[in-house]
Amino acid sequence: VTSQLYVFDLYGTLVDYNSLRPQIYLLTPNASSLVDLWRLKQLQYSFMSSMMGRYVDFDELTAHALDYAAAQYGVQLDADSRERLIDAWSQLPPYPDVRPALEKLRALGAKLAVLSNGTPPALARTVTAAGLDGYFDALLSVDSVKAYKPRPEVYHLAVERFGLSRGEIGFVSSNGWDAVGAAEFGFDVTWCNRNRLPAETFGARPARTIATLAELPAD
Amino acid sequence: VTSQLYVFDLYGTLVDYNSLRPQIYLLTPNASSLVDLWRLKQLQYSFMSSMMGRYVDFDELTAHALDYAAAQYGVQLDADSRERLIDAWSQLPPYPDVRPALEKLRALGAKLAVLSNGTPPALARTVTAAGLDGYFDALLSVDSVKAYKPRPEVYHLAVERFGLSRGEIGFVSSNGWDAVGAAEFGFDVTWCNRNRLPAETFGARPARTIATLAELPAD
Repeated sequence: VTSQLYVFDLYGTLVDYNSLRPQIYLLTPNASSLVDLWRLKQLQYSFMSSMMGRYVDFDELTAHALDYAAAQYGVQLDADSRERLIDAWSQLPPYPDVRPALEKLRALGAKLAVLSNGTPPALARTVTAAGLDGYFDALLSVDSVKAYKPRPEVYHLAVERFGLSRGEIGFVSSNGWDAVGAAEFGFDVTWCNRNRLPAETFGARPARTIATLAELPAD
Repeated sequence: VTSQLYVFDLYGTLVDYNSLRPQIYLLTPNASSLVDLWRLKQLQYSFMSSMMGRYVDFDELTAHALDYAAAQYGVQLDADSRERLIDAWSQLPPYPDVRPALEKLRALGAKLAVLSNGTPPALARTVTAAGLDGYFDALLSVDSVKAYKPRPEVYHLAVERFGLSRGEIGFVSSNGWDAVGAAEFGFDVTWCNRNRLPAETFGARPARTIATLAELPAD
C-alpha cells in the first residue's frame, strides 16, 4: 500500500554527513571518529535543549557540537575552517537511492515532505544543494515549535500541515530513535537501516525496516 | 565556602560502572566497548523516555540498553547472565575517593544526599552494597516525578526536600550533561571530571571543575 504522504527525515536519511570526513582528514587522522562524535554530540545537545527547556537552533547546536568534538581529538580549528565545516551541513550530498525513490513515490501520486531538526534556511539550502528542489510539498522544521525530535509536537507539524490522521502518514527515517519517536506518535513508520544497526529495544516499533530507500513503497 | 547541602549524582560519580567489564570479558573481548555502549544507550533511552512522554523506570531502561549493546556486539545472553548483569548495577563499587570526601563534608557540618535516575530500591541497594549507609540524609529518585535528568522537575526534588534555595545547594556530578542541567536549574555545581573529557560547550557552565572528590569542598 502506498501512503498518500511520505515524510522524510533529512540528516542521515536523505543526505549523508559521512561526506564531511574528507575535509576533516586534512585536520586529523581521526576524522571518522571526530564526525561520529560531532553527530553524537549534536543529537545529545538537541535532547538536552528540549529537556532543559532552553531552545537553541540546530545551526548553533551543530557549532557547539563541533567545538566539543574538536577538543576531544585535539584539533585546533581556526575561524575559517570552523565556519566552513558548519556550513558544510547545508551542502551534504544525497544518498544515491534518494532521487529514484522520490521519483517513484511521486509517480505513484504520493505527496512528499521533509521533517527535520534543521533550521528553515538550512533545510532550503540543503535540499537545493542536493538537487532535490521540486520534489517536496513542504519542508517542515522543528524551529516553528522550538523543540526537537522525538517530542510529539514536532511530529504533529506534519498532521497540522497536511490534515491527515497520524496513521495515514508514512514516515521514513534512518535514525532509530527518530523512527521510534515517530512510531510512538502514531505515524506509519519505515526505518531505513542504512548502517545495519540493531533494532532499538525501547519504545514503539517501526512498522517495517528496509535497507535502502529503493525498497519504497514497502508493505 | 562549604555548602550546607551537597547533592551527589550516583552512577559514574559515587559508584563505578566500569567495574562491569570483567564479567562481560567472559562473554566477549569487546567488553569495554560493550559497557560504553550499554551506558550510552541507557542514557539515550532515558532522554527519549522523557521527550516522548513515556516514562519507564531506569531498571527497565537498563535492561533494554543491555539488549541493544549485546546485539551490537553479537553477544547471546542467556536469561541468567542477563539477570546477573542488570542486577550488578545495584552492586557497583564506590570510587576510592568517595568515603573520605563524604566523611570530610560531614565533619564540616554539611548535609548529604543522592539524586539519581535510579529507582528507589536500586538507590537503597547500591548505597548499602557500596558501604555508604549512614552518610546520606536523603536518597532522591527521579521515579517520584516520572521524568529523567536533565528535566528541571528532577533537580527540584532537592529544593523541595531540604527547603533551600537553588543557589544554596551544592550539586556534584561527573556526568557533563548532568552538571550542565543542574547549572541551568540554578544549583551551585561542581563537575568532577573523572574521565578528563572536554567541557560541554552548550548550556550553563558548572561553577567549578575538579578531578576527584578529594578536592571537595572546592571554592
